Amino acid sequence: MLIIDALQYVNWTRDLFLEARDGGVNAIHVTIAYWENRRDTLENIGDWRQRFRDHGDLIMPIRQASDILIAQEQNKVGIIFGFQNCSPIEDDLRMVETMYDMGARIMQLTYNNQSLLATGCYESGDSGVTRFGKEVIKEMNRVGMIIDMSHSAELSTLQAIELSERPICITHANPSRWHEALRNKSDTVLKALGETGGMLGFSMYPFHLNNGPECTLDDFCGMIMDTAELMGIDNIGIGSDLCQNWGYDTLEWMRSGKWTFKPDYGEGSASNANWPKQPDWFASSKDFRNIADGLEAKGLAQVDIEKIMGLNWYNFFDQGFKPA
Amino acid sequence: MLIIDALQYVNWTRDLFLEARDGGVNAIHVTIAYWENRRDTLENIGDWRQRFRDHGDLIMPIRQASDILIAQEQNKVGIIFGFQNCSPIEDDLRMVETMYDMGARIMQLTYNNQSLLATGCYESGDSGVTRFGKEVIKEMNRVGMIIDMSHSAELSTLQAIELSERPICITHANPSRWHEALRNKSDTVLKALGETGGMLGFSMYPFHLNNGPECTLDDFCGMIMDTAELMGIDNIGIGSDLCQNWGYDTLEWMRSGKWTFKPDYGEGSASNANWPKQPDWFASSKDFRNIADGLEAKGLAQVDIEKIMGLNWYNFFDQGFKPA
Repeated sequence: MLIIDALQYVNWTRDLFLEARDGGVNAIHVTIAYWENRRDTLENIGDWRQRFRDHGDLIMPIRQASDILIAQEQNKVGIIFGFQNCSPIEDDLRMVETMYDMGARIMQLTYNNQSLLATGCYESGDSGVTRFGKEVIKEMNRVGMIIDMSHSAELSTLQAIELSERPICITHANPSRWHEALRNKSDTVLKALGETGGMLGFSMYPFHLNNGPECTLDDFCGMIMDTAELMGIDNIGIGSDLCQNWGYDTLEWMRSGKWTFKPDYGEGSASNANWPKQPDWFASSKDFRNIADGLEAKGLAQVDIEKIMGLNWYNFFDQGFKPA
Repeated sequence: MLIIDALQYVNWTRDLFLEARDGGVNAIHVTIAYWENRRDTLENIGDWRQRFRDHGDLIMPIRQASDILIAQEQNKVGIIFGFQNCSPIEDDLRMVETMYDMGARIMQLTYNNQSLLATGCYESGDSGVTRFGKEVIKEMNRVGMIIDMSHSAELSTLQAIELSERPICITHANPSRWHEALRNKSDTVLKALGETGGMLGFSMYPFHLNNGPECTLDDFCGMIMDTAELMGIDNIGIGSDLCQNWGYDTLEWMRSGKWTFKPDYGEGSASNANWPKQPDWFASSKDFRNIADGLEAKGLAQVDIEKIMGLNWYNFFDQGFKPA
């Protein structure tokens, strides 16, 4: 069974690559940037080049979807470069193609806050997709970089779905009707996403889960099946948002970047500031098969389980990573 | 008579400094950045340091309002550093104080397009002041950097007026009830600005003028007197938006930055793309006294003419440039 995880943010070690490989994960969309500018992004890409040299027996870069099949055949984990923000392109439209050439295949238009392209999900206002944002969407469509609106606000997301000539995705979030959270998505967004051939990746980050870390596998798999009804069985996958091996300072940086002097707690709070505990059925990349088992227990057909676990992302990436 | 111009963008030469000095201009708010990032801004500040060395007999830097009186006494033109966009601080709140220390005293939160802080006047949506924007306003208030919303959208401007604990300004624009333009301002904005002790600088950039380059001095001075009624005689001044000695490539860069591949024509058009012709009564810095004469011809008292020509900006800068 092909397993693709559409979002992780991990402080990688050889042991964690081994864990992912032994968990049967064939490809992971990794986070290259949150707030990083062009220069810092290249630094992070340099770190990945080093990892490919050091752990070439376990991992390989994915530049087109078919590389994932090579990874599967060679028993390696395929690594898809992506940005959780548009900070790597700064204010320069020409950087879209440049970053594509550097390997980036997915880019979020915003990360929680307003960006130059669109509005993030933590803002109180929402300007929609900006003038620069419209140009960037056209350019991403042209080069084959997929638009991700996981951390974007509602109007911006709906406009991106409409403006993009190619299907877009939300790599990691859940329906807000299942669990209300600033990061989860309305039925309006999910329907529009499904109707245009877009994809949603289900998140196992506790702030996105009903009952947080106490969320049951049964509840989670029930939510998946409901969302399949809403969006279509071909438009959903996994985007675990697995964060591993980071200290609190990294979380603080993810939340506060350089834009505030006071700590911002995201969907946490001062009394619940630290990394949340993972649900016991999904502690690491070893546990993807628990989800497949959970879906089977709910009575889902094997063919549909395979779509959700990886095949849908494969097909979406197969179309999306190609230049127009 | 003290003459202060709250906005110019000039490709300076010694002759143009002479022109400003001989025109009786005591201080000019010059444009250090439109799209420039931190590094490019420092480069532009370096260029100014060179100008202060080369033309120290004609110009001097203004760091506090009282420096303008020294400039007047020494028959020099005082130079006030300002940014027409927030690009120089990039995504880093700490850069506000750093840029203040480099001499910057005025910063626009946006330049036509959406920025990380607020929405520009050419966007179709308007998110208002963003999360980062709120922090930047607090920090600008603290260090003594004045907020300028000349190129901002309506809601963003109203929110900035409300959020800022110190009066803000619109250095260069006119009332839209006199001439409808994306860059001109509604009565709602102008009233809110006046009521909070803020300042408007009247622009002589032809796209902001009734009948463009054919605008008469009488019409312009009538508009000033109407605006005095709306905002208060202590809340208005001159912000000429005089642009001199630039080629078309500079205008193209101001309008299109790096955010679009197609040319953007601002308030111009493909058939009217180039720098507009100045009205004959204001061709250069030599012509400020024409405005004083025009106001006198309309019957304005000398004490009020002096306020508009420079005293109001002086008092506003005297409060605004000081740390809280």
